Amino acid sequence: MSEAEEYSYIGKRVPRVDAIWKVTGKAEYFGDVKLPHMLIGKILTSPYPHARIISIDTSKAERLSGVRAAVTSKDMPETALDFYLPGMKGVLFENFPLAIDKVRFIGKEVAAVAADNESIAEEALKLIDVKYEVLEAIFDPEQSMKPNAPRLYDGVENNIARTLSKTHGEVDKGFEEADYIFEDEFKTQPQYHSAMERKGCVCSWDVEGNLTMWTPTQTPHLIRWEVSTVLEISMAKVRVINPNCGGGFGAHAHIVHPYMIICAILAKKAGKPVKVEFGRGEDFAYAATAPPFIVKLKSGVRKDGKLTAREVKMIVDCGAHTLSALGQMKLGYYTACVHLYKAPNIKFDGYVVYTNNPIRTLPYRGFGNPQVAWAIESQMDIIADKLGMDPMELRLRNLFEPGEISVTGCKFDAYGLPECIKKAAETANWSEKKREGMPNRGIGMACLVHISGQVVYDSIETSSVLLIAKEDGSFDLYTDCSEIGTGIWTVCQQIAAETLGTRLEDIKVTGGDTAVGVFELGSYASRATYSVGNAVKIAATDMMQQLFEVAATMLAAKVEDLEAKDGEIYVKNAPEQKVPISEVTYYAHFKLGKVLISKGIWNMPIGPYDPSADRWPPPGMCTSYPFGCQVAEVEVDPKTGKVELLSLTAAHDVGFPINLNSVEGQIEGGLVMGCGYALTENLTTEEGRVLVTDFADYFVWRAPDIPQIKPIVVTTNDSYGPFGAKGLGEPVLVPTAPAIANAIYDAIGVRIKELPVTSEKILKALKERR
Amino acid sequence: MSEAEEYSYIGKRVPRVDAIWKVTGKAEYFGDVKLPHMLIGKILTSPYPHARIISIDTSKAERLSGVRAAVTSKDMPETALDFYLPGMKGVLFENFPLAIDKVRFIGKEVAAVAADNESIAEEALKLIDVKYEVLEAIFDPEQSMKPNAPRLYDGVENNIARTLSKTHGEVDKGFEEADYIFEDEFKTQPQYHSAMERKGCVCSWDVEGNLTMWTPTQTPHLIRWEVSTVLEISMAKVRVINPNCGGGFGAHAHIVHPYMIICAILAKKAGKPVKVEFGRGEDFAYAATAPPFIVKLKSGVRKDGKLTAREVKMIVDCGAHTLSALGQMKLGYYTACVHLYKAPNIKFDGYVVYTNNPIRTLPYRGFGNPQVAWAIESQMDIIADKLGMDPMELRLRNLFEPGEISVTGCKFDAYGLPECIKKAAETANWSEKKREGMPNRGIGMACLVHISGQVVYDSIETSSVLLIAKEDGSFDLYTDCSEIGTGIWTVCQQIAAETLGTRLEDIKVTGGDTAVGVFELGSYASRATYSVGNAVKIAATDMMQQLFEVAATMLAAKVEDLEAKDGEIYVKNAPEQKVPISEVTYYAHFKLGKVLISKGIWNMPIGPYDPSADRWPPPGMCTSYPFGCQVAEVEVDPKTGKVELLSLTAAHDVGFPINLNSVEGQIEGGLVMGCGYALTENLTTEEGRVLVTDFADYFVWRAPDIPQIKPIVVTTNDSYGPFGAKGLGEPVLVPTAPAIANAIYDAIGVRIKELPVTSEKILKALKERR
Repeated sequence: MSEAEEYSYIGKRVPRVDAIWKVTGKAEYFGDVKLPHMLIGKILTSPYPHARIISIDTSKAERLSGVRAAVTSKDMPETALDFYLPGMKGVLFENFPLAIDKVRFIGKEVAAVAADNESIAEEALKLIDVKYEVLEAIFDPEQSMKPNAPRLYDGVENNIARTLSKTHGEVDKGFEEADYIFEDEFKTQPQYHSAMERKGCVCSWDVEGNLTMWTPTQTPHLIRWEVSTVLEISMAKVRVINPNCGGGFGAHAHIVHPYMIICAILAKKAGKPVKVEFGRGEDFAYAATAPPFIVKLKSGVRKDGKLTAREVKMIVDCGAHTLSALGQMKLGYYTACVHLYKAPNIKFDGYVVYTNNPIRTLPYRGFGNPQVAWAIESQMDIIADKLGMDPMELRLRNLFEPGEISVTGCKFDAYGLPECIKKAAETANWSEKKREGMPNRGIGMACLVHISGQVVYDSIETSSVLLIAKEDGSFDLYTDCSEIGTGIWTVCQQIAAETLGTRLEDIKVTGGDTAVGVFELGSYASRATYSVGNAVKIAATDMMQQLFEVAATMLAAKVEDLEAKDGEIYVKNAPEQKVPISEVTYYAHFKLGKVLISKGIWNMPIGPYDPSADRWPPPGMCTSYPFGCQVAEVEVDPKTGKVELLSLTAAHDVGFPINLNSVEGQIEGGLVMGCGYALTENLTTEEGRVLVTDFADYFVWRAPDIPQIKPIVVTTNDSYGPFGAKGLGEPVLVPTAPAIANAIYDAIGVRIKELPVTSEKILKALKERR
Repeated sequence: MSEAEEYSYIGKRVPRVDAIWKVTGKAEYFGDVKLPHMLIGKILTSPYPHARIISIDTSKAERLSGVRAAVTSKDMPETALDFYLPGMKGVLFENFPLAIDKVRFIGKEVAAVAADNESIAEEALKLIDVKYEVLEAIFDPEQSMKPNAPRLYDGVENNIARTLSKTHGEVDKGFEEADYIFEDEFKTQPQYHSAMERKGCVCSWDVEGNLTMWTPTQTPHLIRWEVSTVLEISMAKVRVINPNCGGGFGAHAHIVHPYMIICAILAKKAGKPVKVEFGRGEDFAYAATAPPFIVKLKSGVRKDGKLTAREVKMIVDCGAHTLSALGQMKLGYYTACVHLYKAPNIKFDGYVVYTNNPIRTLPYRGFGNPQVAWAIESQMDIIADKLGMDPMELRLRNLFEPGEISVTGCKFDAYGLPECIKKAAETANWSEKKREGMPNRGIGMACLVHISGQVVYDSIETSSVLLIAKEDGSFDLYTDCSEIGTGIWTVCQQIAAETLGTRLEDIKVTGGDTAVGVFELGSYASRATYSVGNAVKIAATDMMQQLFEVAATMLAAKVEDLEAKDGEIYVKNAPEQKVPISEVTYYAHFKLGKVLISKGIWNMPIGPYDPSADRWPPPGMCTSYPFGCQVAEVEVDPKTGKVELLSLTAAHDVGFPINLNSVEGQIEGGLVMGCGYALTENLTTEEGRVLVTDFADYFVWRAPDIPQIKPIVVTTNDSYGPFGAKGLGEPVLVPTAPAIANAIYDAIGVRIKELPVTSEKILKALKERR
């Protein structure tokens, strides 16, 4: 990190711009929005997993005193709410704001009311009379694919919503070259995003027919676009404000949720602002988790540990609506199956399958990667065990060579995976611990590769920001990237201040409000630092040039001889010749009439997606790949099956850390989520009904539960990222579960292939083994 | 107006973007801002016109239950609130937010409190004990200049705050060439701005130390700068919002008012938001009117009516603080004395004089021009009468030739004054009416030249806007120019839509909030249409180019072959080859990753002010001069002196009308203000105390009082203005009073030289004549 020493702010531990708001409790969330005459909206949902709606009668509800509006699908726009809605061609128009003729899962929105207060609204819901004809339902995705299973949609054969097949190399030949063939099936569970803020929004229409929506979102700009598209009004008439976002994790990425449209229409019909705010139970019942995957993995391996071929079959239970399921399956395949280890010959068949389970295909931290990495990294240890090889050694033997091209034609610019493995192993005393082999104690490892943003809408991966100099040398930086808690605004502040040579406090970052924002995809896909950061660097470089031009006049110097630091511009070889930036901006505005505005537009330098070409750039991939390796150490009580996590070591190639505090915070947060994914969290359903109503039933790891965490920051200086930085938000979660499961196997020799690895499963496996 | 026929929106009658808000009563003003825990601030002012403050004791007030903060000058920043505060060198540091050691007028702010409600705050003011040593006061500016008058400031000789002298040509020679010499003295009164919204603001500090101020202002950007300068905090920490502004007329231009700083400091001290809102009585008492002028005019005229020389002496009563007095005197001199009629030899001596009258030197519609035009245009009729010449003919003989250069080196690009005179006279049947000579009926004329913006801070006259394309072909246009009721946002919308070839409703104008604004001087000096309009045109032209580049790809055409109209871009010679702008923006964003942002920066093309050179550009002048001629027809009752206004004809050279509705609205509004200035309005004081407490004591003309108004729009196509447009806001008021006074003289042969021309004055003059 020698570069960091040259920097004023990059690579340092910089306090978060939003810290004081959050620690003082002054940060306002949509739930804090209180508008005059605001009503409370409540949504009636389906009690049946599969049923035909015969009739809906809201007349009794409407007559209840204090009820201001009641709506059914008849009041709704006729546009379905699909993922990547207007850009993606051929989407299935299936998820309407309110169910039209059928409900396909328990929890599907059926009708809604707005009333003076919550209790009236709840009372009104009870007065809505919905007559259903109950239909046979299906909950198991593999059963759902069978010919005689009940069908969710007319014309959809075997409930298969989407398929994806890929072949790279010669798979049969690869298996012929193998000394061993391994076949395993792995499963993952639905995990709840566990954002501390419950879902909801406030909608208010003004006299001109403009809609303002306050809602936690990772993508205000996209939500504005989608809401305006669905409501069939101009984008000029929609303003989306993300006041603050109490956790994203994918739940608030891209998706225009039904409650948003329902709330908007209720507000319009009632002529008053409406707030819809889920209770915790509703938030659990809305579910909308990561899709559970079934991954069937067949791998050919030579005696020396080299992979020769892989055949992968995935079945993704998308519930009743595909939403992001295909994207997640695709990303999981490319990252974990293709780009993590060299597997020259691969065949992939993926199926997104409808069931009558609740929506489970929202984006989720990792976007398919954790599900597939669970399979790949579990099987790597099965292979190592069979070959009698150190699992670390097996992994190292299957890495790419520096500069090597993947079967997809992909080259990893900054390939920090070997160093991540090395550093994680060193820090965790891997070899020593492996030798020790203490009873019931074990150590496990898993690796990851991920993306820093990905091409969406077929073609683009874009961020843009505006930087505006103020007369006194302070600067406004506008981004429509939400600060959802990741520290991105601080990253923006650092990059702008570093590039401009100004002081940190002179950069005011504003955003998360489409009224002040420029085109921005948002805060998801581990893209914000990479993409928004690049846009900020471009804008700041341009601004610096503008400042230098003015300063050159003031200092009677040449532009190319100037440098800036700590709020002053000076002549490189004569630093006593200097002028404060505040005087430069004053002079520019009031003496020259120069208004200093710069824009920064970043487009990931990847050509448009050509679906006919199976080559780089592959769909959904990027320029800058984050890598990582995590090592878990556990002790398992063989009597109870209880797993005690002793330590977690996480080495992550972040390219270059912009804010060390935030990098370590992301690592710690991701590991906590990974612990839950590995061991405890499971949003269980029974016959399509979510059984969890409360955090009492759903174990999210809290401070006292967390083991010792050792974050290791690996620096590789990516060519494309700003100051060499790559993404980190999602990667951290990816390898945690297999690392822990591998450690459990190492400790007591049982292999659990279905997440979460509960004490019950361990105990059962131990009993079966005995 | 043949050009208008080619335009889609320019020159048309376009509904105002803010109309629906205002007619439905939904437009929110600062008075509507209600924040949680907001306190009410009240200000204690001096009851003496001149006194030394011995002590201020707020302890009793502070102990009153419900009082949250009390402040005196000790709590205030030590920066005085002067006009053009940080840019103007050598200003007198005289107007502190709260009086420090002396009070110099009745109404000077002395202390303030913030309390839970208004009655507690008022009660608290009574408990503040201020001990004064009363000093001798002076109220007449001419007396004030005498050696033995009481002095307001140490070191200010004869209470003369500022002087300005100019000589052009050879004045003595000019008078020698004259056949007649006229010497007259004219006086004007203080006129109240009569904004329907009373003054005030709401201030709120957040946990990060950022100040948000809601206040009606014509210049949010400058107010942000001045407030941050006075409070000694970064501009990044100040946000000024002009929610709506219930009338500007100069009262809210530039000036950071004491109540703003007091409110901010009260809010900081109390730790809660504070609202300060003047009652109507307080608003009258705060006075802050246009400065009353004494103009002594000596004019030499040949028998043929040609002016040969002029000697002008002005005395401007600025009260205790100069503020904009010097600027107004200067502008009044240049417009009415130098640029209205050719007077080759001119000598000018101006004095800004302190008195113990209330503040009377806020900017005011016309900025000195109405005061001086009152003198010039009254004397023109005196001259015509003496020469036995038609006053119109006298005026026409003293106009500039087309292309002629003034003594100040100034060339009028689009010189519509002759046409204004011709059209006004035709419409008013001038010659016929003059011939008729009906008893007690009269007709009078007066002309004007004004500015469209002027150079400030020595160097600049700048506007800037941002134009951002949205994905669906709608556009955000950001300006920090307030919509203060003049229609400027509609003008912005028209210019952007016309230039882009899009639909009107696709342009959303946002502004009046420094959080979304770029550098903008504001809405004053008849500059907004000219300067902001130019900035919009620049931004839209750039945006059009960006759109054409994308469309050229889509249409496989050349950029230079494209045109846009009504939301479509088409090939000029093959209009069937076309694409909607909405598809162009969609394609740009989602297929090309092109983010379409343009900035428009307009700088009046005038070099920096060189005070040593008495040449073009003269200080405070511009590129684009609005002209006008008004004709008034009256009937005077010789028994009562009562004047009945029969009709007002107003021909104004607006360059080119952007929005005909707004142009006519400005003309009508200006005339109404002019009627009050001419006949009824006078914010009278007695021994420095404002006597008016209510509109019952102050006659502003209302709908039933208004005579028939005939607005005439003269088009001259200014080279610098957007689509040829010049300013109009201020000019309309300028000639109304002398036109009416000249008509009164024409009717009954009495000449009143002091405004307003009341029935009493007429009756007295009639009696004196008899």
